[in-house]
Amino acid sequence: MIKKIGILTSGGDAPGMNAAIRSSVRYALYNKLEVMGIYRGYAGLINEELVQMNHRSVSNIINLGGTILKTARCPEFFTDEGQKRAVEVLKKNNIDALVIIGGNGTQSGANALAKNWHVPLVCIASTIDNDLNGFDYTIGSDTAVNTALDAIDKIRNTSTSMERIFVVEVMGRNSGFIAMQVALAGGAEEVLVPERKFDYESLCHDIVNGNLRGKVSWIIIVAEGAASAAEVSKQIQEMTELDVRVVTLGHIQRGGNPTARDRILATRLGAASVDLILKNQFAKTVGLVGEDLKVIDTEVAIQKKKIEVDYFYKLIRVLT
Amino acid sequence: MIKKIGILTSGGDAPGMNAAIRSSVRYALYNKLEVMGIYRGYAGLINEELVQMNHRSVSNIINLGGTILKTARCPEFFTDEGQKRAVEVLKKNNIDALVIIGGNGTQSGANALAKNWHVPLVCIASTIDNDLNGFDYTIGSDTAVNTALDAIDKIRNTSTSMERIFVVEVMGRNSGFIAMQVALAGGAEEVLVPERKFDYESLCHDIVNGNLRGKVSWIIIVAEGAASAAEVSKQIQEMTELDVRVVTLGHIQRGGNPTARDRILATRLGAASVDLILKNQFAKTVGLVGEDLKVIDTEVAIQKKKIEVDYFYKLIRVLT
Amino acid sequence: MIKKIGILTSGGDAPGMNAAIRSSVRYALYNKLEVMGIYRGYAGLINEELVQMNHRSVSNIINLGGTILKTARCPEFFTDEGQKRAVEVLKKNNIDALVIIGGNGTQSGANALAKNWHVPLVCIASTIDNDLNGFDYTIGSDTAVNTALDAIDKIRNTSTSMERIFVVEVMGRNSGFIAMQVALAGGAEEVLVPERKFDYESLCHDIVNGNLRGKVSWIIIVAEGAASAAEVSKQIQEMTELDVRVVTLGHIQRGGNPTARDRILATRLGAASVDLILKNQFAKTVGLVGEDLKVIDTEVAIQKKKIEVDYFYKLIRVLT
Amino acid sequence: MIKKIGILTSGGDAPGMNAAIRSSVRYALYNKLEVMGIYRGYAGLINEELVQMNHRSVSNIINLGGTILKTARCPEFFTDEGQKRAVEVLKKNNIDALVIIGGNGTQSGANALAKNWHVPLVCIASTIDNDLNGFDYTIGSDTAVNTALDAIDKIRNTSTSMERIFVVEVMGRNSGFIAMQVALAGGAEEVLVPERKFDYESLCHDIVNGNLRGKVSWIIIVAEGAASAAEVSKQIQEMTELDVRVVTLGHIQRGGNPTARDRILATRLGAASVDLILKNQFAKTVGLVGEDLKVIDTEVAIQKKKIEVDYFYKLIRVLT
Repeated sequence: MIKKIGILTSGGDAPGMNAAIRSSVRYALYNKLEVMGIYRGYAGLINEELVQMNHRSVSNIINLGGTILKTARCPEFFTDEGQKRAVEVLKKNNIDALVIIGGNGTQSGANALAKNWHVPLVCIASTIDNDLNGFDYTIGSDTAVNTALDAIDKIRNTSTSMERIFVVEVMGRNSGFIAMQVALAGGAEEVLVPERKFDYESLCHDIVNGNLRGKVSWIIIVAEGAASAAEVSKQIQEMTELDVRVVTLGHIQRGGNPTARDRILATRLGAASVDLILKNQFAKTVGLVGEDLKVIDTEVAIQKKKIEVDYFYKLIRVLT
Repeated sequence: MIKKIGILTSGGDAPGMNAAIRSSVRYALYNKLEVMGIYRGYAGLINEELVQMNHRSVSNIINLGGTILKTARCPEFFTDEGQKRAVEVLKKNNIDALVIIGGNGTQSGANALAKNWHVPLVCIASTIDNDLNGFDYTIGSDTAVNTALDAIDKIRNTSTSMERIFVVEVMGRNSGFIAMQVALAGGAEEVLVPERKFDYESLCHDIVNGNLRGKVSWIIIVAEGAASAAEVSKQIQEMTELDVRVVTLGHIQRGGNPTARDRILATRLGAASVDLILKNQFAKTVGLVGEDLKVIDTEVAIQKKKIEVDYFYKLIRVLT
Repeated sequence: MIKKIGILTSGGDAPGMNAAIRSSVRYALYNKLEVMGIYRGYAGLINEELVQMNHRSVSNIINLGGTILKTARCPEFFTDEGQKRAVEVLKKNNIDALVIIGGNGTQSGANALAKNWHVPLVCIASTIDNDLNGFDYTIGSDTAVNTALDAIDKIRNTSTSMERIFVVEVMGRNSGFIAMQVALAGGAEEVLVPERKFDYESLCHDIVNGNLRGKVSWIIIVAEGAASAAEVSKQIQEMTELDVRVVTLGHIQRGGNPTARDRILATRLGAASVDLILKNQFAKTVGLVGEDLKVIDTEVAIQKKKIEVDYFYKLIRVLT
Repeated sequence: MIKKIGILTSGGDAPGMNAAIRSSVRYALYNKLEVMGIYRGYAGLINEELVQMNHRSVSNIINLGGTILKTARCPEFFTDEGQKRAVEVLKKNNIDALVIIGGNGTQSGANALAKNWHVPLVCIASTIDNDLNGFDYTIGSDTAVNTALDAIDKIRNTSTSMERIFVVEVMGRNSGFIAMQVALAGGAEEVLVPERKFDYESLCHDIVNGNLRGKVSWIIIVAEGAASAAEVSKQIQEMTELDVRVVTLGHIQRGGNPTARDRILATRLGAASVDLILKNQFAKTVGLVGEDLKVIDTEVAIQKKKIEVDYFYKLIRVLT
């Protein structure tokens, strides 16, 4: 029987991780489980950086970005040696099961721990990139989209006032999710994502044609996985001889107070992860499909997610 | 064949209405329809307050709260006389179909127009109260929840610093939707909604017991349809003799720049409403279920929506 | 020689108090002083609720609203008995001087402690009402004004869309400062403050005349010290028979992350308060005049502040 | 006698320019002046892009970023030919005086027009860089600082969670104003500005020493005029072998809804500029010193501004 669980956050931080920690901890305590916080993700697990969590440990964090348990990248954990060490720490500290909060890379590690070492664990889908297979939304993506959108709105002020072309790079190494969302919500003129081929010639053709019709201000959103804003800007300037400005939004997209949606999702997933543990359902990831919680095998969740971009792309282009 | 459509917004304004107008107008123009804007909802329809809309008419409004077409309450429209007059105006101006953006009351009017007078029309689900039957989300509700949540976060600063009880009234005459969402997302200690009975005795019992354990700051969310914050405050003060502060969030919940989610929803619904018109599907309301657009007969959409509050309520109480 | 100081916050909380605490604590530690935090203002002083503060005690609080030292009202402190008890606690704990962060009421208490009991102390001007005599700005007022303004902007969306009259009550029991600032910055049509007589007849006359010229949306700002929004609304409705909406902003004006200006002011004042202690200058209040720090005798700072409203009022009316 | 004035915005846009336009226009109309808006700054003046402004032309813009009159850079205007052409356009359109809203470059142009061609004009100090000589604040700088600070707060979430060094580049080609403000308000560990020499060795020494004491998260603010974030990052990585992240805030600092302070300043300056014209005081710039409006000869305002950074820098370092 499960008596004591450990909780960790790993990989890139996402707004809402703290709300998930709060929910897991308190829901576990309510269900008479003992809870250990593990600092710095897998690195802290290996290094035995543990702390007992009580009800007060998670007070006043539901609205904070980042993660109070810290996070780290840990290459060592992807070796047999590292995983063996992790298992020893769990055993030594009588931790019966783990709640693991993170994205794709984090859950790949979790999957290895579950498959190779039979560690009972449940994952919470948490990544601003929203690239976990089988889910509509993961913790942090709604906040990241709104943060990027707020930046686009600000850039629109200057783009309209100065009648310039702006190329804005948003996060998304493997996914055009954030780019597509902010392009549609921000009324952007064009969007470049890894899921869809594009060529600079037709892009520049559109810009030049637009210019002839009097359309002089453009916002072009680029997912970092599709191209760098600097490269796109260079191509446009060379082909059109127009002046282009570059903005790379960068790490501001990871931070900030989580939106209502991310806090609610995180709170629901935190409780659900403990429910799974209480039902002895392991090697699972919990996330959102539509408005409903969904449980998926972690090894499925880490497979490549396909996102459909045609519908959004068509809307963006028609409405410009 | 439909050649010319009219667009109006009616009832309480909701953030995202402008994004819906923009999308309907441009999507219709793209499909070679002529578009008339109708000012002040049904009142403007009756008074023939029309304006031709072109691509530029809806520039730079995707991020603005309120509605550029204005809105009004119009009791006259709920008479036969009023509806007959509306039909005459449509005929006189060769308007073949209507896009109607609004909530429950607005769509009841639309349903009458469709059923009694055979006016071809499509409704867009748009209300911060999120009380249209058959949909998970309507335009404006995500923004309203985030606005209320931002206020709760601010109040939490004072509630924690001064160790006081705050009763905060949020919108929702018939629905506890906003109250439940912000209570869960804001880490509120208690929430009172029309969908769930409550008694002041057990509420005050909890507060007094909490006080004995050292819990001195409380935030209690009240949906306006459940009770007034003033009444709740009075009851608590009388029963517990503790000092209670009241905040009524009021109209700030209607305004503000729409969130990404509301802009995207509005943009999708705007285009979808025109698609329905092009397919001659009328007396329908389009909204969101999960992440998918859903078309429902307007007469069904205006029936009483039941929202499930037990799951959220249990979470709120367990996690406090 | 001063070796050990105590810091407390008292009265209504103001955004930036935490930044002031951080600055006082770290600046004092840097100057080799020992620092005690005193919880719950004068109440905690009397009850000896003390905690040793170190560099880490004030990490990550510069951007948080409220006060980590809590605050409370303490009628007992305004008795000889209470003050005597406070002096004993200071003596017993070897606290040589106090930094007191708060507004008018708080500093009246501080002045009594300094004058009657010769306690060495320095006050930091901190109140959203900005009603300390001799200063242009106090900690929290910039944030409060921006919070209220954000609410006004939201209300403007609905006021414009529905073409209604809104009466919005902002904080300021003795001062029209917040009201004047947000009225000018929000483009309000009228503002009622305690510093300026007004009569409902000429107000209603303006509204009716405006209506005849086609001006149908109004925002009227009321400082709570001038009238209640409910009363103003009732008068207008009775005299004009127009529909009027009421919003009372309330406690949201106290909370929220402080603006840059409030954090910088708080940081400067925190360090300056310790500098005064190091120079043995006591019974002083430090605040801002123009962009410069200013030191004033506390007994002068608590006298009634006169604010000039005519210039702002004329601008508001001319530009409407 | 002045009967008709022209208003233009030029150079980089700044939040609050629209509030200044609104105020100038309405205050001029109130004083029975005729008002022409000139599009695209000096370029539009040369190209005679004029529009008659009335009371309604500036409705609902007080809270909008950017400038409704657009802005442009115009090298041609810095030739005799260009200025001569500008004078002809003014004459042809009976424009007796100009209100010119912009920063250093804009006002250099204005000064030439006033000195060489005797055009009656008044300038409004408006630049996010706050680099006009003789003024404490210019329109837009308060908003830009708050926007940058909001980004720093977000980056702090990740910096703390991942325990990394972040180098954040803010605007300021010739001025460390924004950098100093956000460094103090954001609790940054280090700040590099053009006004103060720095060397990478002592910076890296501090970082490595901090690391030994357990200080693992750093935010280093860089004004673009001091160095590029990329360069600073490269130096730190080479010298310390630590992992460093780079964020360049870029154009988001120009946009967004203006703060209360910027709107109030803009409103005051707009009216004051018209007052100067009515008093036949020309070749002047109006801005803010302390809380008071100040009028300075434009040729003085464009001289190099010295800002004092030692006091802020010391505070930043002591409080870290």
